[in-house]
This record gives sequence, C-alpha cells and structure tokens, in this order.
Amino acid sequence: MYEDRVRNSALLDRIVSAEEAALLIKDGMMVGMSGFTRAGEAKAVPMALAARAKTEPLQITLVTGASLGNDLDKTLAEAHVLSRRMPFQADPALRKAINAGEVMFVDQHLSETVEMLRTRQLGPVDVAVIEAVAITEQGGIVPTTSVGNSASFAILAEKVIVEINLSQSTQLEGLHDIYIPTHRPVRMPIPVVSPESRVGVPFIPIDPNKIAAIVITEKLDSSSTILPPDDGTRGIAGHLSDFLQHEVKKGRLTNSLQPLQAGIGTIANAVLHGLIDTPFHDLKMYSEVLQDSTFDLFDSGKLDFASGSSITLSAEKYKEVFPNLNKYKSRLMLRPQEISNHPEVVRRLGIIGINTALEFDIYGNVNSTHVGGTKMMNGIGGSGDFARNGYLSIFVTKATAKDGKISSVVPMVSHVDHNEHDVDILATEFGLADLRGLAPRERAPLIIQNCCDPIYRDQLMDYYKRAVVRGGHTPHVMEEALSWHVRLAETGTML
Amino acid sequence: MYEDRVRNSALLDRIVSAEEAALLIKDGMMVGMSGFTRAGEAKAVPMALAARAKTEPLQITLVTGASLGNDLDKTLAEAHVLSRRMPFQADPALRKAINAGEVMFVDQHLSETVEMLRTRQLGPVDVAVIEAVAITEQGGIVPTTSVGNSASFAILAEKVIVEINLSQSTQLEGLHDIYIPTHRPVRMPIPVVSPESRVGVPFIPIDPNKIAAIVITEKLDSSSTILPPDDGTRGIAGHLSDFLQHEVKKGRLTNSLQPLQAGIGTIANAVLHGLIDTPFHDLKMYSEVLQDSTFDLFDSGKLDFASGSSITLSAEKYKEVFPNLNKYKSRLMLRPQEISNHPEVVRRLGIIGINTALEFDIYGNVNSTHVGGTKMMNGIGGSGDFARNGYLSIFVTKATAKDGKISSVVPMVSHVDHNEHDVDILATEFGLADLRGLAPRERAPLIIQNCCDPIYRDQLMDYYKRAVVRGGHTPHVMEEALSWHVRLAETGTML
Ligand SMILES: CC(C)(COP(=O)(O)OP(=O)(O)OC[C@H]1O[C@@H](n2cnc3c(N)ncnc32)[C@H](O)[C@@H]1OP(=O)(O)O)[C@@H](O)C(=O)NCCC(=O)NCCS
Ligand SMILES: CC(C)(COP(=O)(O)OP(=O)(O)OC[C@H]1O[C@@H](n2cnc3c(N)ncnc32)[C@H](O)[C@@H]1OP(=O)(O)O)[C@@H](O)C(=O)NCCC(=O)NCCS
Repeated sequence: MYEDRVRNSALLDRIVSAEEAALLIKDGMMVGMSGFTRAGEAKAVPMALAARAKTEPLQITLVTGASLGNDLDKTLAEAHVLSRRMPFQADPALRKAINAGEVMFVDQHLSETVEMLRTRQLGPVDVAVIEAVAITEQGGIVPTTSVGNSASFAILAEKVIVEINLSQSTQLEGLHDIYIPTHRPVRMPIPVVSPESRVGVPFIPIDPNKIAAIVITEKLDSSSTILPPDDGTRGIAGHLSDFLQHEVKKGRLTNSLQPLQAGIGTIANAVLHGLIDTPFHDLKMYSEVLQDSTFDLFDSGKLDFASGSSITLSAEKYKEVFPNLNKYKSRLMLRPQEISNHPEVVRRLGIIGINTALEFDIYGNVNSTHVGGTKMMNGIGGSGDFARNGYLSIFVTKATAKDGKISSVVPMVSHVDHNEHDVDILATEFGLADLRGLAPRERAPLIIQNCCDPIYRDQLMDYYKRAVVRGGHTPHVMEEALSWHVRLAETGTML
Repeated sequence: MYEDRVRNSALLDRIVSAEEAALLIKDGMMVGMSGFTRAGEAKAVPMALAARAKTEPLQITLVTGASLGNDLDKTLAEAHVLSRRMPFQADPALRKAINAGEVMFVDQHLSETVEMLRTRQLGPVDVAVIEAVAITEQGGIVPTTSVGNSASFAILAEKVIVEINLSQSTQLEGLHDIYIPTHRPVRMPIPVVSPESRVGVPFIPIDPNKIAAIVITEKLDSSSTILPPDDGTRGIAGHLSDFLQHEVKKGRLTNSLQPLQAGIGTIANAVLHGLIDTPFHDLKMYSEVLQDSTFDLFDSGKLDFASGSSITLSAEKYKEVFPNLNKYKSRLMLRPQEISNHPEVVRRLGIIGINTALEFDIYGNVNSTHVGGTKMMNGIGGSGDFARNGYLSIFVTKATAKDGKISSVVPMVSHVDHNEHDVDILATEFGLADLRGLAPRERAPLIIQNCCDPIYRDQLMDYYKRAVVRGGHTPHVMEEALSWHVRLAETGTML
C-alpha cells in the first residue's frame, strides 16, 4: 500500500497516525509547516496538536509560507497552541488573538523568513511538517499546491514529518522548481532570467533519514474566499488597463507588458481578470499566489506562462483546473517563495506588481495591514518584495470601505507599509494617479482629484490646502493628520 | 595642451569655456550631472548656468548621483535654476527652497533613478555634464572621485559635456568599475559575487561623437562636514561592537563579519571608526560613500577591501589620502550607485547596513528624512536599498536632539522611511534593541528601556501602557500618537 506515493521503500515503515507523528512536536518548539494562502498546508498533524493541547501544555512557534486553509489557524489559535506565528496569516480568529496580544505575530516580507532561518537569526526549526504528493525513490519530497517555505523548512529542520495527501493530484508532480540559494560568503547569482526559467529540481532534496514520520491524509485544500468582480473592481481594472495601454502608446511597454505579479484578495484578482478585455497578449506572470484570474487568462489565450508559489482557487475553478492540470502544466511553475519574491529576480525581470491597499494618503504612502493604525488585518505578505524592487509598483483599493463610512484616501495613513518611494501608481474606481517623478506637493492634488471618493474630496482638499500654508516638503497639519481615524473611532464615520 | 587628459585627439577641438558649454543647456531641459555626496561633481558648467539665469529665463530638472559640493546646490537654488531636483541633496539653502515648495524635490532610492531613466519612466536626459580625470583614446570617460549616476547619464543623454578637472589626481584612473545591467526582457545576472568583483570597464564607454563640449577646470572637491566622534557617537559604536561580538559568539557571524555599508553623516562615520578597537579583522565594505572611517580602517589593518560609489573626506584626510592614492588603490573600487546599492547584489552579498535615523518609534519604524514630519532634511538616499535587502539592517541615532528638547525615540514617527519590517537593530548612546523575531508588543518595552533617553523614558512607557489598554497588534493612542511633535512645535520641547 502507498508504494506509488512513498517510493523509497525504506520509508514505508515510518507511516504512522497523525497523533503519533505529532508527538515529535514538543512544547516550546519552533515548527515549520507547509502552506501558502490556503494551499498545500499540512492538514492532519496540526489538528492532532490542537487536540493534544486540550490535555497538556503545548505551545509552539509556528512558521509557514503564508496563510493556512481548513480553518487551521483558527483551530490552533483557539486551542492556544500558538505562542508565536510568522510570517503571514489571514484568519479572523487568529487575527483576534493577535490583536488581543495573545499570539506574538511577526509580520515579515515573505522573501525574508527563510533567509533569517538559514543564517540562524531565527530558529532553529525543530520539526518541519510538509504536505506532499509523493516521496521519490531518493527520498525527495514532492510538494502539493504550494511550495512556500517548505523546501527550506525541510532542509533546516532536525526532523521532518511528511503528510502524503492522497486527494492531491499526482499531476502536480513535475510542476515544482526547487532552488535554494548557495551559501555565503560566496553566493552565486540565482539563474532565473525569465518567468519560465527552470533552475532547480522538481522535489525537495533532503536526506531521507530525516523523515521521521509519514502521515496519510485525504483532506482537500480549502477554496479561496475571493468575491467575483463587481462594479467597483471593474472600475479599477478599467483605469489600470487604460493606463497600461497608454504606456504601450508611449513606447515604454510592449503589448506583452512585463511579467505581472498580483497580490492576494478580491481586488487584485479582479484587476488581473480585467486584462482579458484588452489588446495585450503573450503575457507572463511572475507572482506569488496564482488565483482564478491566472486560469481565466490562460483560457482566454492572453497568458503564456505563470510562475508562482501556490495555486489558490475558488470552489468552481478548483473543479475545473485540478482534474485537468496536465492541460496547463507546461505553462505553470511553482517555486519557493524566497525565489518567487526574491529582490534579485524581481528587479531583474522588471515586474509590474499590483497589490492592494487598505488605505493610502495624499502623498502616496500605503497601509496594507493595520485597520485604524493598530489592528492587524493579514500582514504585509510579499507586497513589499515586489513594490520595492519591481519595475512598476501599483496599489489599488476601493475608494471607501464600510458603506462609505471609511475613506481609503486619507490625509496621513495610520500605518505605513509602503512609503511614497515604493508607490508609482494608485488606483480606485474613481481614477488613477501616476506619481512617477512627482514631488509630494504635485502628488497630493492628483491623488485627491483622481482617486478620492467625491464625498470626501472637499474635506481632503481642505486639509491639503491648510497643510500647504504651514509649508514643508510634505505639508501636514500635524495635530489633524490622524484626526480622520480618531473621528471614525469616536463617531463611526470619517465624514 | 591637455593631450594627456584628452587622449582622443579628435576631441581636442571641442574644448570650450564653461559658458560656451553651458549654452547647450536650454530652459526646460533635464540635465544629468555627476556628483555624489560632495565628490566628483561637475563644477564649472553649473556655475555658468547660475550666472546665465540672472539675465534669461533658465530652469532645469537637475538629476545627480546624490548631493553636490562647492555650494553648487545652494548657488543653483538661489539663482532659481532648479525647477525639479532628484534624487538627493544635503544643502541648507536648497532644503529651504524645497520646504517652501519652490523646488520640486523627488526623493528616490539611489539605486532606482537610472532604472527609471533607462525605461523612460523619467526623462529623457537632454544633456549630461560629467567631471572626469581624462578621456581615453577611444573616447571613454574616466570619472573622478565618484561614479554615482554618471555612466548612465552619459549613455542616455543626447549630448555630453565633460569637465576635465586637472586637480583630480590621475591616480584615480583604474579605480572605477563601470557595469551597466543588460536590457530587458533578457537581463543577465549582475556578476558581482564579492565586494572586489571587477565586472566592467574602468571608464564610461560612450560614442565620442556624443561629447559635445569639453571644459577644463581645476577646482577641488569640497571636504566633508562630518564632526569627529564624541561621547555620544562613541557610546553608539560601543553598543554596536558589543552586539556584533555577541553575534560572533553565537556563531552567526565570523570575526570578518559580512560586507559593511555605512550611511552618510557624522554618526555612521563614528560607528564605523569604532570598529578599529574590536577583535574583528579582514573586514570588507560594500557601501555607497566611503568616508574618513574607511581609510582609518585601512590604516589600522582591519579593512581588506572597500567598494563604494564615491570618496568624501574631511580636509585633513583628503590631504593624506589623495596624494597617496596608489597606496590604497588595489583595495578600492568605485561603482555606479545602481550597482553599489543594487538589491540583487545587496541581498547576495548579505550586507550589514548601518544607517542613521532622525527618529524612530517604539515599534521600530524609522524616519530618516522629515524633521517634524514635514520638513525635508536630505532625502532617503541609499538607506532603503540596504535596509530592505541586506542581511542585517541597523539604524543608529543619538537619543535626543537640540539639547534634549527633542526625543529621537517617539510614540509614532512623524514620517516613515523604513518600517518595522526593514529594521533589525536600533542603537543610541543608551543602548541597543535587537528586534529580530519580535512582535510589536515585545519590541516596544525593549526600545523604551534600551534606547530612549532616561529623561523621556517614563513619558514613553506611560504612552505605551495606555496604548496597550486599547489593544491591537501595534497599540496606539491614535489621538496622541503625534502629540510629541505637536508639543514640540507649540512649546519648543517634547518634554
Ligand atoms: C489589503 C487586503 C486586506 C485587501 O483585501 P481584498 O480582499 O482585496 O479587499 P476588500 O476590499 O475585500 O477588503 C478586505 C476587508 O478590509 C476592509 N477595509 C478595506 N479598506 C479599509 C480601510 N481603509 N479601513 C478599514 N477597513 C478596510 C473591507 O471593508 C473588508 O472588510 P470585511 O472583511 O469586513 O468585509 C489584502 O489585499 C491584503 O491582506 N494585503 C496585504 C498582503 C499583500 O498585499 N500581499 C500581496 C502579495 S500576496
Ligand atoms: C539622518 C541624517 C540627517 C543624520 O545625519 P548626521 O550627520 O549623522 O546626524 P546629526 O546628529 O548631526 O543630525 C543632523 C541634524 O539633524 C538634527 N536632528 C537629529 N535628530 C533630530 C530629530 N529627531 N528631530 C529633528 N532634528 C533632528 C540634528 O540636531 C542635526 O541638526 P543640525 O544640522 O541643526 O545640527 C543623515 O544620516 C541622513 O541624511 N540620512 C538619510 C540618508 C541616508 O541614510 N543615506 C544612507 C546611505 S548614504
């Protein structure tokens, strides 16, 4: 049994129950688990940990690729298993625990976590738990729907638990490209020179003796929670398409653009989807998470190739794509998030990054993470890897939230994830502001005019005008700069 | 005459006066000039422009490497020649004009300016004005004490003016390594794999026909304005040395550390100088501007090699170093700032970046540029290139400014240049905070305890405690978050 999935026969007797495997994880350990934006997470062992925590003290530092599916972050948070969590999450229950100060959340650029582990600035990783399609004859681990940080976790950990997921299609095999940067002091260039560069091996190469336990599971990945495009997101997509066509007209881009990255969530997905109805062609993606829109673009014939670190789909798209994966396989690649987001590669390829803001301010600073300046939403994710180092950094958001009670364009953002230096283009459903080469005093009127909801426009322009009277390179009325957020907290609206 | 400096004889008849050369520059043009932190700037042509502006309308966009010496930014600002200025400056008069909204200042990461010019997101560059030691037989331009953006300006500009500076030592020849990234879509890896990697040519390779004018000058570079180490900076240096020794003890670094970058200014220079009295050896620098401390470290036998984009020295050090440049030459290299600061190389080499903050907050966000949140000081410079992509990102500052009236550790910074994701270590004369792997609620008490001046400590702890009562991942009392800055503006002190 399972010989087709566990092909190194010496490992077959390491198959145990999830409960037994979970015993390798002890109170106080640092555990690295697979999983990236609800795709390819280890599913059985974390559930066993949550169960164990009911009867014994059990708290761990949990490091993953990004967010987990199957309500695992919720289950683990509610069972109080998580003392520390990094580098990303997107779960309401865990979010609550983080904002209450119960879980220490370390919000990191997604390309950096394994760099810090490798140099022992974090860690050591005691145990890695990796979901796999199969283990090869040589003991190599074939990941499932995400790579995330799995490869480095497995390489760095003292012990590795593999969850073989029988419901994950064996068509996934061959899709992954595992490349680990060489060791300093003499690190070599990462040889990725285009989205389709294959530079590594299709499995995680580790000493099979480190595989301490194998667990057989069957649970599916969760489907994504993104909403379909609506008028607002279609509006944003329209402004962006117009802008990109203008860039082509100016001769700065061709109709194949530059490799595209699109962030997580409803808005970025809708914007990418919007490229279907444009004259662009032979597009390529070099992104992090591949959402529904990637496959819509494939099916429309617009997209040539997509490199990412995970595939996260809606329930309908899931049913379409995974049984027919071979149809897409020659045009797809999954990489470690260190490589999908690597500053070196992002700059070399000249990526167009499209990420979502919670709010931005009149000078172009972006808040992607902190609601009201204090409450963590999800984390910065890979947005900073792309925004800092790419060719063009685009941030999108709807102009208002909560039925207009919140303006997403404010005098000063209440938290800065991306500063004015890293933001080229801002777009809402009302319009787009091209900030390239502009000074703060030029940006402000443009952003207010083009991006702000008309119901907040006068109020914002009034702030800006009074700020200018005070002077400065970046004029502010400092005692009022955060007053919109204070008003919202006190009265329930920024109006 | 000048055949030893202008070795392409076809170019000899292009030698003209500065006034005549300056006529190539017309109202409204974009002009790229050499010059990086007071080193190697074109000296005669900008003076001729300032003179011309007295009698005719003449306003340009001036792009340089970084700040200019010889009061040129002052002279140009006061003559109203600058309508737009990028990507960095450090001049009190220009600063005043920027803060008054008279000059549109575009504050950029120093690695990015030429990327934006090359892709025509900025530009075109009409004229480049480059200071040189010599022009080679083939028409290659040999820069002087800085490379900055000079190579790309000369390559991209329609016309090039060369200022041959006879007072710049011909010993500079051979020091430069000019490498220009290949064109997308197929850009190759930048082959720099260690600080001493030589990957280009020792001159700026351009078509000599583009050299439209040559001007002969003799003016020296300005000396740097840094102050010698004092008790405060020695304190900071001490804390950093202790920390780095601790890292060696932990096995995370060897006694040769990793390549060092140090920012501009008095504090960073003093910190680097402090490495003389440590057990470290065989150090290397991969930095931007090489200040006095680089040569102190060479002379002490601690430093093996230094790569930078400019050499900026105090008056005394200047007299010591430049007449004896051959003594240092085999251990020195000057590169384009795109390469000295390149995300790809910074990450690959694993640089330890030491940069200076104006202020930082209890969660580790850093303001390097905006006094009181509105008034531009100098610009972000290369600090973001190193802080985002390096191995270890250190920010230093004195705990107070203006005789204690200003605390450099505040509840919330009034402007964010580097956010918590990019800041590993903070140090003042009072101590050091190691933020790696910590959540905001863990960072705050550490920063307050270790880095804040005792006269502000209770006040800051009181803020933090009240913020925690409100909750959140990054707790704040939003209506008070900027109140220290408001109080300073109203009463003259943050106390
Ligand atoms: C910013 C982000 C949360 C937006 O997600 P999205 O699904 O596209 O956007 P939505 O408009 O649905 O907003 C999500 C929620 O934030 C709320 N919101 C939006 N703007 C807000 C604002 N200015 N203030 C407060 N809440 C706001 C929305 O109301 C919505 O709330 P709900 O969940 O209660 O309905 C998401 O993109 C993210 O986490 N980004 C950071 C990480 C990242 O960029 N990664 C990119 C590389 S993967
Ligand atoms: C931040 C920076 C201005 C500090 O320079 P420095 O010479 O080391 O530091 P100093 O302590 O002398 O401070 C410079 C001035 O800022 C003032 N200052 C310092 N902290 C301040 C604060 N929190 N609020 C207001 N003013 C402050 C000082 O009083 C001093 O004023 P003065 O010129 O009137 O005497 C400088 O490092 C810089 O411009 N950095 C940004 C660019 C950069 O980091 N480049 C790195 C790669 S090159």
